[in-house]
Amino acid sequence: MRQYPKPLNKLINELSKLPGIGGKTAQRLAFHILALEESEATALANSIVNAKRSLHYCSVCGNLTDTDPCEICSDESRDRTKVCVVETPQDVIAMERVREFKGLYHVLHGAISPVEGIGPNEINLKSLITRLQQHDEVGEIIVATNPNIEGEATAMYIARLLKPSGIKVTRIAHGIPVGGDLEYADEVTLLKAMEGRREI
Amino acid sequence: MRQYPKPLNKLINELSKLPGIGGKTAQRLAFHILALEESEATALANSIVNAKRSLHYCSVCGNLTDTDPCEICSDESRDRTKVCVVETPQDVIAMERVREFKGLYHVLHGAISPVEGIGPNEINLKSLITRLQQHDEVGEIIVATNPNIEGEATAMYIARLLKPSGIKVTRIAHGIPVGGDLEYADEVTLLKAMEGRREI
Ligand SMILES: [Zn+2]
Ligand SMILES: [Zn+2]
Repeated sequence: MRQYPKPLNKLINELSKLPGIGGKTAQRLAFHILALEESEATALANSIVNAKRSLHYCSVCGNLTDTDPCEICSDESRDRTKVCVVETPQDVIAMERVREFKGLYHVLHGAISPVEGIGPNEINLKSLITRLQQHDEVGEIIVATNPNIEGEATAMYIARLLKPSGIKVTRIAHGIPVGGDLEYADEVTLLKAMEGRREI
Repeated sequence: MRQYPKPLNKLINELSKLPGIGGKTAQRLAFHILALEESEATALANSIVNAKRSLHYCSVCGNLTDTDPCEICSDESRDRTKVCVVETPQDVIAMERVREFKGLYHVLHGAISPVEGIGPNEINLKSLITRLQQHDEVGEIIVATNPNIEGEATAMYIARLLKPSGIKVTRIAHGIPVGGDLEYADEVTLLKAMEGRREI
């Protein structure tokens, strides 16, 4: 059976590796890319390579950044007594959209999930402990993991872990629908969740 | 409001320019790309640049190709007495899937549409006439434009245009649902359409 020319097949193949991009969509995208000006196609390709090369995780908080430490960790005006623990860099952006929280973050890159075999050592948790040992100005850890089984388990684990330290551990309130995803919560919901946080 | 780091914003922005990729999807794709191995991200980027640079339209038939003339035009085993006229390179692939038609193609890159201000000069039609003047072995033009208003108008225009030449102009039969898109027709439908072609 006759196929597309090799470079097109290759492009369709690469695009269809992306999540949620099926064969038909990959084909449609490929033909769209072929219809771009060469400068536009190059801009797209460069943005991929450049993002991949220049972005990494902040050595302090685990947030996605092109500097180290990240902009938030480096910002002297932030309240260094509060650290909000989230699952993903997307969650940091979601929290920042609320413009309410002025503290720092810690990004776990996941949550504890016995079902999926993800334990405390598989997420970015050890570095939180090290961080707290080095910075005794931290008085409150706000756990803003997702309000689902894994997020709650992670919150409980962190609360138990920090119990001996005497640091206050709070959990954002159920403003976010249970089972929902922090990343997709609107600003008002997130604000309510933040205001209603309770100690755990 | 805090944003993603610049290289990530740039990537999300470039991805969201693609058709059917909204902001949320672009964000999801961007984070997926960041999670790729650097070699995988580079492969994706290279496939974009490479496809864009190496592919062009065949100077004979207008098909998408990385050689010139294209593989089909260069294939000495093809029946040079029949030329199937289609709207897009995708349609060539659709026709080839049928494995029935062994002639050559001519890709119009569109169809006549008075509503959208697309006249005979806006599509790759003049080169068909030149081609027929240079190759008097062509005895039949099979018009396989889409069975919608524009496709039918284009078929009628081609039939009138070639009337003086005495070349037989046929139209693929209504095996393809009226209003449908050739590209998405299954093989059997396309085969029926091809077999039932009639002179116009
Ligand atoms: Zn940081
Ligand atoms: Zn060709």
